[in-house]
Amino acid sequence: MQKYIVLLSSTRRVVVERGKTHYGDFGIIDTSTVEVGDVIRTKKETFVVVEPTISDTLSICRRGAQIVTAKDAGQIMAITGLSSGWKCLDAGSGSGFLAIQLGNAVGPKGRVITYEKRKDFFTTAKKNIERCGLEGIVTIKNQDVATFREKNFDLIFFDLKHSHTLVERANARLKPGGWLIVYSPHIEAQIAALEEMRNNHMHVHATIETIQRKWKSNHGYTHPEPSGITHTGFMTFARKVV
Amino acid sequence: MQKYIVLLSSTRRVVVERGKTHYGDFGIIDTSTVEVGDVIRTKKETFVVVEPTISDTLSICRRGAQIVTAKDAGQIMAITGLSSGWKCLDAGSGSGFLAIQLGNAVGPKGRVITYEKRKDFFTTAKKNIERCGLEGIVTIKNQDVATFREKNFDLIFFDLKHSHTLVERANARLKPGGWLIVYSPHIEAQIAALEEMRNNHMHVHATIETIQRKWKSNHGYTHPEPSGITHTGFMTFARKVV
Amino acid sequence: MQKYIVLLSSTRRVVVERGKTHYGDFGIIDTSTVEVGDVIRTKKETFVVVEPTISDTLSICRRGAQIVTAKDAGQIMAITGLSSGWKCLDAGSGSGFLAIQLGNAVGPKGRVITYEKRKDFFTTAKKNIERCGLEGIVTIKNQDVATFREKNFDLIFFDLKHSHTLVERANARLKPGGWLIVYSPHIEAQIAALEEMRNNHMHVHATIETIQRKWKSNHGYTHPEPSGITHTGFMTFARKVV
Amino acid sequence: MQKYIVLLSSTRRVVVERGKTHYGDFGIIDTSTVEVGDVIRTKKETFVVVEPTISDTLSICRRGAQIVTAKDAGQIMAITGLSSGWKCLDAGSGSGFLAIQLGNAVGPKGRVITYEKRKDFFTTAKKNIERCGLEGIVTIKNQDVATFREKNFDLIFFDLKHSHTLVERANARLKPGGWLIVYSPHIEAQIAALEEMRNNHMHVHATIETIQRKWKSNHGYTHPEPSGITHTGFMTFARKVV
Repeated sequence: MQKYIVLLSSTRRVVVERGKTHYGDFGIIDTSTVEVGDVIRTKKETFVVVEPTISDTLSICRRGAQIVTAKDAGQIMAITGLSSGWKCLDAGSGSGFLAIQLGNAVGPKGRVITYEKRKDFFTTAKKNIERCGLEGIVTIKNQDVATFREKNFDLIFFDLKHSHTLVERANARLKPGGWLIVYSPHIEAQIAALEEMRNNHMHVHATIETIQRKWKSNHGYTHPEPSGITHTGFMTFARKVV
Repeated sequence: MQKYIVLLSSTRRVVVERGKTHYGDFGIIDTSTVEVGDVIRTKKETFVVVEPTISDTLSICRRGAQIVTAKDAGQIMAITGLSSGWKCLDAGSGSGFLAIQLGNAVGPKGRVITYEKRKDFFTTAKKNIERCGLEGIVTIKNQDVATFREKNFDLIFFDLKHSHTLVERANARLKPGGWLIVYSPHIEAQIAALEEMRNNHMHVHATIETIQRKWKSNHGYTHPEPSGITHTGFMTFARKVV
Repeated sequence: MQKYIVLLSSTRRVVVERGKTHYGDFGIIDTSTVEVGDVIRTKKETFVVVEPTISDTLSICRRGAQIVTAKDAGQIMAITGLSSGWKCLDAGSGSGFLAIQLGNAVGPKGRVITYEKRKDFFTTAKKNIERCGLEGIVTIKNQDVATFREKNFDLIFFDLKHSHTLVERANARLKPGGWLIVYSPHIEAQIAALEEMRNNHMHVHATIETIQRKWKSNHGYTHPEPSGITHTGFMTFARKVV
Repeated sequence: MQKYIVLLSSTRRVVVERGKTHYGDFGIIDTSTVEVGDVIRTKKETFVVVEPTISDTLSICRRGAQIVTAKDAGQIMAITGLSSGWKCLDAGSGSGFLAIQLGNAVGPKGRVITYEKRKDFFTTAKKNIERCGLEGIVTIKNQDVATFREKNFDLIFFDLKHSHTLVERANARLKPGGWLIVYSPHIEAQIAALEEMRNNHMHVHATIETIQRKWKSNHGYTHPEPSGITHTGFMTFARKVV
């Protein structure tokens, strides 16, 4: 059973700790007496009680560091074909958002190891992993990933300052056909990683960037939101050959 | 054991039927005598033999209809938090690409039902589902989805001409908190679906569009590809409340 | 001679009224004693004194209403081939930014008439036109454009709530081959205008939207700005045939 | 009087040499007997005869080399505030498209000098400049721009392989406040140019890239075009200080 529960109305998503009383501007809800599927009517809102998906729980996770957004996490899943049972390495953890998305996808038969050398980020990420109930799948280490020794990975993800210096090690520790993904906001980091991937005879799949716009539509006025995120990061995907 | 096997080199990905002999410009490879992990050296290339991921097998699936691309399938996974065990409805199947991505993500504990009324698309999609070894998880029906009667879905995906006419039915047949996603190339279809979602008091999460560019980088010349896909479709995400 | 003068350093652009003393955190500059081309060294900065371009003067114009940005104004110039001597209609003026760009391009042999029914916007736009020294070229009227009677326009630009209701009138008052441009943030306004353009047998050139990103580059860290403008407006370009 | 004339119908734009007979699938039109403003009815189309704008004439200019598109030319005009009377340098000419756009904007009081070292591009660009009737404003030289000696430019535009090597020379030959624009498809060229601009204490305005999508709308089906141009070039804008 998950720690959290979602109160969902047509205009709100409130993720609350199970068993606690929630005070909102819409009224007071005592979650110790509700069950999944219950409908709760306050003065202003009609809520239904639902189990959180991983994206619900992520929405209340703390963001101590820049996160890998859903937009980019989704590309990793769909491009690699990420599946139940995969063994993944993630570094640095940051706030743990990608480790959590990977953990959710690989499930109890899979495993995610995530490295974070900064103590403050490590603490935040660890708590977030626990919030999502994934501590049995995702292992977090408060260490520099530079000397990691685990092997036989299906997928390695780097969101680090000098990822290119770790391409050779990553390649050595992937399964044949396994995926290395280098993420960074800066194009130079992609260029450097790409060169190292080629030096290691990896199969380079693609370097991509993904731009997403939200649209609003109200009574005949439909338009993309006028301002928002214009860039998160580039990602280069490559696979181990030899 | 999967039907296919991947021969991966630094420049090629060749997905071949296991046990067959493959003739390429790089030489002849008899796959009946190879095992996963073997390294095969032809005159021109060094291949490693690997198990296909779902994206590998999708790469050789036939495209009889416009497909939901990995770029958009990934958004569905990451935004909804799609997980092992989910029960999904998909219509129309088209070539079955999204049903296959969903099937891969929900795994043997989950289920995907996909409807396709056109006989030719149905036949293509069915074959693609079998190619991916997902016939135990993904059920395809050669019927119009308009009167579907299954219920308790975690996720319903519509890529149909008049999706908005089915929003009420979808809402009635989702679990509380379950996701409805309407996909279409045309903005009017999103506007109409959004209105129906609001009429049904659904929790509207967002309408998005996702633009992806591939970058090339060779010896100091790094740039986005000059031409390519500029639009696939919009997607509106909403969840059942009551 | 222009009212303003620009003090340009490697990090600043300060547009000041000619003859006035300017007090900045970089020091005090008395512009009554400087001439174009002079170099002024303060403790922190080296400035050169230059004549303002129209974009310099626009940078200090007041923005009482949403403006047509340089990004979109540039499309109008390049797509239509806007030239010296053209006669243009612009409505509504808003803060007058587009009227000013048009006025600068058509020059003293050309003419721009701009309509603004809101008194407050009219006042701002009028002052901005004067700031740019274009009152001899750009005429602003504090009237609703709906009944405009001028004719023989080379270019008519509408940034209005219901532009489509004015397409017929615009077509009647354009020169053959003259351009009508409908701008709006909302896609419905483009669809409605487009239909009217077709009803009037206009030559529809295109409906476009233009997305611009700024890039930052510092010591090996090069990336698009992470957040910013994601949408201004759509524009439909059509020309009068009969 | 221009060499060309435009036959414009609701679906076609035919740019033809004045005085010649034009044979199209829509019928035969003898332009020696028509005047601007005439309406010509063939079996299939109703045409009006109009003077070409510069964008009309550019539409029939030959493209021997990659051109600077209207999308990017427009940014140059609007961002710099390009005006009648400016003196511009353009190199390399390529097919002359930008030189022509600049020539049209600066008019008879202005001047554009464009350099092209490749003989074949030079020949094409020269012919295109003449097609547009701009040979009195735009001077083309079949020389390498590397040693250009003209000075007092308001605007210098480089679309060259190693533009950064010419930043110092450009800065020395601009008027104070004058604009240098470096265009290239490759991000490395922008980074290198930017560094040189900073070394020369120029005022760096911005590095931009502009993405444009065309939209289609027919009877309730409105969408961006599914494929097209995804990248032309980046542009860095800087101004001379000292």
